[in-house]
Amino acid sequence: MSTCIKLGALTLALGMGMGSAAWSAESLQDVMKRRGLSQQDVLSAAKTYVPTGKRDEFVAFASGGQSGQLIVYGVPSMRILKYVAVFTPEPWQGYGYDESSRAILKAGAINGKEITWGDAHHPAISETQGKYDGQYLFINDKANPRIAVVDLRDFETKQIVVNPVFKSEHGGGFVTPNTEYVMEAAQYAAPLENEFQPLEAFNEKYRGGITYWKFDRKQGRIVPAESFSVELPPYAQDVTDAGKGPSEGWSFTNSFCSERYVGGIEKGRPPYEAGCSAKDTDYMHVINWKKAAELVKQGKAKKINGHNVLMMDTAVKEGILFLVPEPKSPHGVDVAPDGKLIIVSGKLDTHVSVFSFEKIMAAIKAGKFESKDPYGIPVISMKDALQTQVQVGLGPLHTQFDAKKCVAYTSLYVDSQVAKWDYCTGKVLDKISVHYNIGHLMTMEGDAVDPKGRYLVALNKLSIDRFNPVGPLHPQNHQLIDISGDKMQLLYDMPIPLGEPHNTVAIEASKLRPGVRYKVGTDSRTDKPHPGAVRAGEEVTTRTGKKVEVKGTLIRSHITPETIEVEVGDEVTINLTNLERAEDETHGFAVSGYNVHASIEPGKTVAVKFVADKEGVYPYYCTEFCSALHLEMMGYLLVKPKNWKPQGTSAIAKANYTEANYRTRLKTVAETQAVIDSVVGYITSVNYKDFPDVVSMVEDATDQLNKIPDAKARHEAAAAKKDWDQATLWAEQVWQYQVKAADIGLRAKTYLEQHNAKKTR
Amino acid sequence: MSTCIKLGALTLALGMGMGSAAWSAESLQDVMKRRGLSQQDVLSAAKTYVPTGKRDEFVAFASGGQSGQLIVYGVPSMRILKYVAVFTPEPWQGYGYDESSRAILKAGAINGKEITWGDAHHPAISETQGKYDGQYLFINDKANPRIAVVDLRDFETKQIVVNPVFKSEHGGGFVTPNTEYVMEAAQYAAPLENEFQPLEAFNEKYRGGITYWKFDRKQGRIVPAESFSVELPPYAQDVTDAGKGPSEGWSFTNSFCSERYVGGIEKGRPPYEAGCSAKDTDYMHVINWKKAAELVKQGKAKKINGHNVLMMDTAVKEGILFLVPEPKSPHGVDVAPDGKLIIVSGKLDTHVSVFSFEKIMAAIKAGKFESKDPYGIPVISMKDALQTQVQVGLGPLHTQFDAKKCVAYTSLYVDSQVAKWDYCTGKVLDKISVHYNIGHLMTMEGDAVDPKGRYLVALNKLSIDRFNPVGPLHPQNHQLIDISGDKMQLLYDMPIPLGEPHNTVAIEASKLRPGVRYKVGTDSRTDKPHPGAVRAGEEVTTRTGKKVEVKGTLIRSHITPETIEVEVGDEVTINLTNLERAEDETHGFAVSGYNVHASIEPGKTVAVKFVADKEGVYPYYCTEFCSALHLEMMGYLLVKPKNWKPQGTSAIAKANYTEANYRTRLKTVAETQAVIDSVVGYITSVNYKDFPDVVSMVEDATDQLNKIPDAKARHEAAAAKKDWDQATLWAEQVWQYQVKAADIGLRAKTYLEQHNAKKTR
Repeated sequence: MSTCIKLGALTLALGMGMGSAAWSAESLQDVMKRRGLSQQDVLSAAKTYVPTGKRDEFVAFASGGQSGQLIVYGVPSMRILKYVAVFTPEPWQGYGYDESSRAILKAGAINGKEITWGDAHHPAISETQGKYDGQYLFINDKANPRIAVVDLRDFETKQIVVNPVFKSEHGGGFVTPNTEYVMEAAQYAAPLENEFQPLEAFNEKYRGGITYWKFDRKQGRIVPAESFSVELPPYAQDVTDAGKGPSEGWSFTNSFCSERYVGGIEKGRPPYEAGCSAKDTDYMHVINWKKAAELVKQGKAKKINGHNVLMMDTAVKEGILFLVPEPKSPHGVDVAPDGKLIIVSGKLDTHVSVFSFEKIMAAIKAGKFESKDPYGIPVISMKDALQTQVQVGLGPLHTQFDAKKCVAYTSLYVDSQVAKWDYCTGKVLDKISVHYNIGHLMTMEGDAVDPKGRYLVALNKLSIDRFNPVGPLHPQNHQLIDISGDKMQLLYDMPIPLGEPHNTVAIEASKLRPGVRYKVGTDSRTDKPHPGAVRAGEEVTTRTGKKVEVKGTLIRSHITPETIEVEVGDEVTINLTNLERAEDETHGFAVSGYNVHASIEPGKTVAVKFVADKEGVYPYYCTEFCSALHLEMMGYLLVKPKNWKPQGTSAIAKANYTEANYRTRLKTVAETQAVIDSVVGYITSVNYKDFPDVVSMVEDATDQLNKIPDAKARHEAAAAKKDWDQATLWAEQVWQYQVKAADIGLRAKTYLEQHNAKKTR
Repeated sequence: MSTCIKLGALTLALGMGMGSAAWSAESLQDVMKRRGLSQQDVLSAAKTYVPTGKRDEFVAFASGGQSGQLIVYGVPSMRILKYVAVFTPEPWQGYGYDESSRAILKAGAINGKEITWGDAHHPAISETQGKYDGQYLFINDKANPRIAVVDLRDFETKQIVVNPVFKSEHGGGFVTPNTEYVMEAAQYAAPLENEFQPLEAFNEKYRGGITYWKFDRKQGRIVPAESFSVELPPYAQDVTDAGKGPSEGWSFTNSFCSERYVGGIEKGRPPYEAGCSAKDTDYMHVINWKKAAELVKQGKAKKINGHNVLMMDTAVKEGILFLVPEPKSPHGVDVAPDGKLIIVSGKLDTHVSVFSFEKIMAAIKAGKFESKDPYGIPVISMKDALQTQVQVGLGPLHTQFDAKKCVAYTSLYVDSQVAKWDYCTGKVLDKISVHYNIGHLMTMEGDAVDPKGRYLVALNKLSIDRFNPVGPLHPQNHQLIDISGDKMQLLYDMPIPLGEPHNTVAIEASKLRPGVRYKVGTDSRTDKPHPGAVRAGEEVTTRTGKKVEVKGTLIRSHITPETIEVEVGDEVTINLTNLERAEDETHGFAVSGYNVHASIEPGKTVAVKFVADKEGVYPYYCTEFCSALHLEMMGYLLVKPKNWKPQGTSAIAKANYTEANYRTRLKTVAETQAVIDSVVGYITSVNYKDFPDVVSMVEDATDQLNKIPDAKARHEAAAAKKDWDQATLWAEQVWQYQVKAADIGLRAKTYLEQHNAKKTR
């Protein structure tokens, strides 16, 4: 059982690897002592550390809460890979600062008002037969009821749709097993017609509901015209889950405040929290969405605000809507992987309640209801629906599933713990403390039909003392827990630096296959060719009345055009196409003072638009550190006074270079060519064609080298005419092309060496 | 030398710690094998892993590039702790979504146009005698020349100032040794008067410069009226550093494109990059800022756009401005810790150039100049100023210093390496490869007079294949390198998920002492009492014409008021004060569809304002998961039609609770009190008063318990009148207060246990 390795050998190996006898490296034991690490700490470190160039096993997608964004991180390293802009403008991505992404945000306007943030709560990855397929992600906005679609091919937001009948929603971003629909349940009730009604009319005029957004997988977009809602009582609907396997075709939605209580603490009335949790139970809504969709197709829906709403009386009459009492103020409603059980956690209860889909169906079939609610909806008794209840602790909230049969994990908000339990036997198997006050939790693909187990993440709402202090506003704390053994083991504390992730989903990394470049000239927000795209050499500036349109290009290190001249008051549109192919060769674009920014990844075309409303001189530049001469990748927007005419015959000043300057340039060019030849020699001596990343780099380097003959012809022609200014500058430009080719070539060489490229000759 | 520990013992220890004989934990060797980790990987993991509850040694502040924000992360764990909103609205922090922060952003408007992003490049921590003091941080916006002030007491942006004479800047965010001034150098030249001038007038009318922003440390604000600029030639000034020790009072600013070249690739002219790097040298600007400040005080500056500008001819005449040729297109200009040497890296050179301040002063004193530039500025010859040049590799960019004497580190962009070298002997000591194309680099307090050594971070611009793919737009890669030994050792790859950090500074964590709460009623953006603040029980809604002003409060789990009634068209201001004291008990506030959001940390008062322009029902709610009943922390904004009158005598529906309901409530209350008594018993049995975090929690819990007598009196009075509705609801409210007290109490108990509180009785 006991294994012994020599830590001294580790020191030695490191020393040798570094090739320095003088270096006295610390041994692992030294490091443990210096840093106060326990053996368990080292084990946790080893379980989470991902060495350079290696990949994480899972990719997690967390809602960004009030940041309105989506947070992508790796598991087990817990390193954040990207914030994807969804509901909130974000300039690094150009989101809301270029025209195409502005159109996405504008489609999310409410009552004609642009909404520049969201309260993102529940991300959902698209599913095929109940399994995560890694194609799309959906996420909701609680504050302004909306759903967004993110394409996982490029991690960009493609669409925002506004709920036409709700004023608030929480239970959004849940998909049916083949992503036929994205479900969005209302939260705080209000009139569906978006009209004013006094609170006194709460029971009669205020309504909840659930919207089923039709998703067109081929187009990658939600189709509002084919979407519909089911009207529900004003019971503050909460999270939702779709049935699967035997329960496929049904959906389950929690509620709280089924008391329909209206607070008023400022008027001496007991506050919402008292009235909304006075009863011991709320209602789980059980809905046959497949049949509801058919009823809508049959024309049985009512149009409200132009949207199909299946009214409660129709739903009741057609037998597609039922209620089941559940312990009060629940949050999670989680369908087990086999689709047979539905697990509900009442936050003010100490139990999880396991409902049986089979029992619910039996009661419906038998017409066995304990009552009807005030709106005529049949209520199945809790006893008739319940499989079992398991006491897990204080403040149970959300349940996720393990790859191991019958094993579930439930977060305990008040206890600040995670309970591991068996939903077949009803036994609690283990508990672990978390820091502090856990909301949702996540296992790997933990709500799919085939959860992957391995890791669990506790989404703790408070971090308090866990991290270096950063002022009164603290990060949240996502704690990674190893669930591969019988006992849960805390591995890692991860601060969330921006936003309050409400829920998170994780997918096997191998299922994601995003692209690294676009087909040249693509508008990434529409997935179509961009009308402003041009190829190299076709750059053009046109004027139509007061409108100036630039169609330009970007390639290391030029923006073409380098000068844009307009008249004050012109509306200026600048379209830019990134001509690079190499992975990660993004260019940015900003114009001083005009509040536009674009991120233009390889192949993408982006337009920015503004009114040049003040005369002056405005530099524009590439905002990415894209080459050694990135600072020189710039130009000037000249906003001229109306009817301005150049005075005299002034020309741009000459530089007064000499023949000696020219000869020096030529010498440098010859020397640099030797470096390039050596790099090219190395690359072509190995199997570089087996590395698509390198092939793209070689293509980009070749592009740069191919520009040399033209520049060479120019400097030679100028030299023949003894125009040493032009001769020196064009010779310099030859060198610029060389430097960039060498830069890419050296990067390719490093890449090949790091990836153990094989000699082919 | 060789130490042997039994890994089997580790397994055993873990097994015992978990108290489960059945659990077969992996040994370290098992984990290494399963995860493919080398011994060096484990050593790196152990050097960077920070166990739960432990702190990082250093805190790094990275500019957020085009995100416009500031990124705060811990070293060595490389976990991002916070994105601080600076130039870009950010809803999680309420930045740009509440009134006080909107005022900060509005002060950054240019030509009356609100600018909603920035290109943040260089953060600088305030210094006292050349040492980082951890009080303030300054950061620049390259795209729209501005400087922001962040207060490190609360990590909030307090001020944005717009440069009155520049159109572009890059060399911003550098401080003088006692933070007298924050320096901001122009980049792309333009007329200082902000007027239009054609490119043909480039040499005559376009200008660069450097602005010295006066900082008032007591007020924590820049004072524009006491700030000034020095006019400089149109040489594309770049980064700047302040002299220190013997060179204190002077500043050094790089440049590129001192050729004053104007591109035009679209017109067949060689592009900027060719013309801007055609000469072998550019100029380092050497400026006596102390004397410049005196000259300005003496009235020798010219007012341009209302701002004091010391013109070049005055600066030359007064002997405070000199030029020194430096290898072309340099980026870094870095003053060594002793203040005697200035290290410049020409990006197209293979050398770093070490200039001697003493030699520069000697040349100035002797009046020994090789020439004057076209603007009459004396040029000291490179030979007379240079100490030495050291060949370090391709694309040297930025230099930072070690705690070890004479040891410096320079980033090599083209080679994708870091060179460690000795600036006293001129020897290269070591090189390490990074991934890929490093821009700036950072050692711990590496530009202060007393660098701390230990760690170096390489700010790599490309990550390419280092991380799980997330689409065409890649994260940057910050690589942590151990510099404690003779050889550098790569420890960790950290993806930057949002923005392109341009430069980063790191400070010893112990120097930061941010607060966790505000004095009740504070406007955090002005540091003054907020006019909208009220105390508990003083909440009020007032109307003045079409303006409705709410002064409300927040405490778990109520927003007071719970109903706000206005008429369509009213301008609504909602002021909210967070009454919590416990650390990390932040509340958020959103109104459906009105595009406002506030983050209200303990003690803070925030106002949101909007026009209620459409009649209807709009829920508002707390956007933080602040208690188990956070979903119930809500209310309704009712926007009524003009002149709406309630119809009939309808009242809010009654709940019809019974005496039995009331008795059940009372039973629960009694049971819960037992839990509370037990928790209180534990807390008071230990030295909880030694833990300020817990003292705050106890205060908040006591607040909740103190509300009970009033609610108890109400339920007893109602019961006496057999009003079972009110009796049940107020009894329920007693329980709510209990639950929150218990929630806080349990958290305090966990905290005390985790921090090994001692029994006192």
